[in-house]
Amino acid sequence: MQTYFDCFPCFIDQALRAGRMATDDERKIKRLLDEVGMMLKDIRLESTPPETARLIYQKVKKITGKSDPYRKIKKENTAKALTLYPSLKRTVEASSDRLLAAIRLAVAGNVMDFGASKDFDIEAEINEIFQRKFAILDSTEFREYLDKSEEVLFIADNAGECVFDRLLIEEMKKRVTYVVRGVPVVNDATYEDAVQAGLDKVALIMPSGTDAPGTILATCSQEFRRIYDRSSFIISKGQGNYEALCDEKRPIFFFLKAKCEVIAKDVGVNQGDIVLKAINV
Amino acid sequence: MQTYFDCFPCFIDQALRAGRMATDDERKIKRLLDEVGMMLKDIRLESTPPETARLIYQKVKKITGKSDPYRKIKKENTAKALTLYPSLKRTVEASSDRLLAAIRLAVAGNVMDFGASKDFDIEAEINEIFQRKFAILDSTEFREYLDKSEEVLFIADNAGECVFDRLLIEEMKKRVTYVVRGVPVVNDATYEDAVQAGLDKVALIMPSGTDAPGTILATCSQEFRRIYDRSSFIISKGQGNYEALCDEKRPIFFFLKAKCEVIAKDVGVNQGDIVLKAINV
Repeated sequence: MQTYFDCFPCFIDQALRAGRMATDDERKIKRLLDEVGMMLKDIRLESTPPETARLIYQKVKKITGKSDPYRKIKKENTAKALTLYPSLKRTVEASSDRLLAAIRLAVAGNVMDFGASKDFDIEAEINEIFQRKFAILDSTEFREYLDKSEEVLFIADNAGECVFDRLLIEEMKKRVTYVVRGVPVVNDATYEDAVQAGLDKVALIMPSGTDAPGTILATCSQEFRRIYDRSSFIISKGQGNYEALCDEKRPIFFFLKAKCEVIAKDVGVNQGDIVLKAINV
Repeated sequence: MQTYFDCFPCFIDQALRAGRMATDDERKIKRLLDEVGMMLKDIRLESTPPETARLIYQKVKKITGKSDPYRKIKKENTAKALTLYPSLKRTVEASSDRLLAAIRLAVAGNVMDFGASKDFDIEAEINEIFQRKFAILDSTEFREYLDKSEEVLFIADNAGECVFDRLLIEEMKKRVTYVVRGVPVVNDATYEDAVQAGLDKVALIMPSGTDAPGTILATCSQEFRRIYDRSSFIISKGQGNYEALCDEKRPIFFFLKAKCEVIAKDVGVNQGDIVLKAINV
């Protein structure tokens, strides 16, 4: 997805939030805002937003010296999600359409992104999303690809959300490669987060190698690229991965909540809508 | 009021909105965002936000060549407000406390700021605000100053809002100098807007001379400064004037709706709250 003008204020906002998460030193935060401000002129509208966000989070690390400011919150969020796991599992098991229930929960898990929204209440939002109508629900295509595929490449988004992904993976009953970020970036899931969420029990966890908050292929490892290139059934969670992969030519199923207006417009839905959108199927 | 870090994303957002109002040329909008991005490093946190906003709107004019992009909308808003005038006047006249009703309407008029909020519905919001509790209501002090003063310096905010100010001025029954911006800046009221709203019938309209979206005294005319310096009863409408004048030493009554979190925090209220706050009384 291209960068829109509306992404520009959001870049400054992202820098501010990440900077505040990393440090209380106002001089460092000011320096971060100054430097990100100066970056704006170098943003090409043809680039994807995570390409710019990647540079912003690199600056946060460089200026604050903190390589993983979201560590504690990620750990807490995963722990919180794990306490929900037994009741979520029962919800899936009690459903007449277990796969659809697991799909719903996988999208509901995407609301746990404290990188994009300022306030969130996990349990209330899960319940609400579980009832909500999908603006796009390509579940027929999803079932078709699930039936004909032996393997699934599952690209994760935030920590915490991994627990919800686990429920879907358990229902899919396929060989799953679960892809996480190569290094910590915002609250995105890394290897450590996926293991904490128990994904090692149901999938092969693999870092993509990227340090961007989205799977920008050019920044991923050769090993991941090889696996990606031969995948015929890819699940992609969240906005950052959508922004990085929505113009790709492989069959990809995007699970996301459209948290910002720009992405909602690009997807063709309203802000706040939830979608399971398939491309190239 | 100082500049807070949260003002930084908002500066970019203001530039974007003003740029879009002035032109459809994406290259010009990009250039504007680039240049405003580069400005961030020069912002001193001790400066007031309108000082930066002033530079932003100067850039919008320079890059787009449009000196008054809000002209049409301002005119329409004033015309719309004028259609409401008779019923608003009846509301005041039917009130047991006419002055308080006019105070309420003067604050309600402040919601007409399409510079700060993206969506607005005037009539619904007027009715809602008319019922709403003020978070701060220094009306006792206001009545006291009104009783002991012969003259009032009334600093206007947005066009359209002038019609609501007129209702208050009519109730105050004092000699009022009604202060507008020196040149067009966003949707703020200029001489032309005030005349359209009929303020020339109830007050002496005077431009402050500033080209900022707030009464930054250093940017005002000598003539205005002289009148300001001898005023002992000042009414200031809206956020921009609050930001520019809240640390002044004269008796000022701020009428505003706290549209953003930063100002709400500075005033000591919640975002969305309405206030009539007196200082130095």
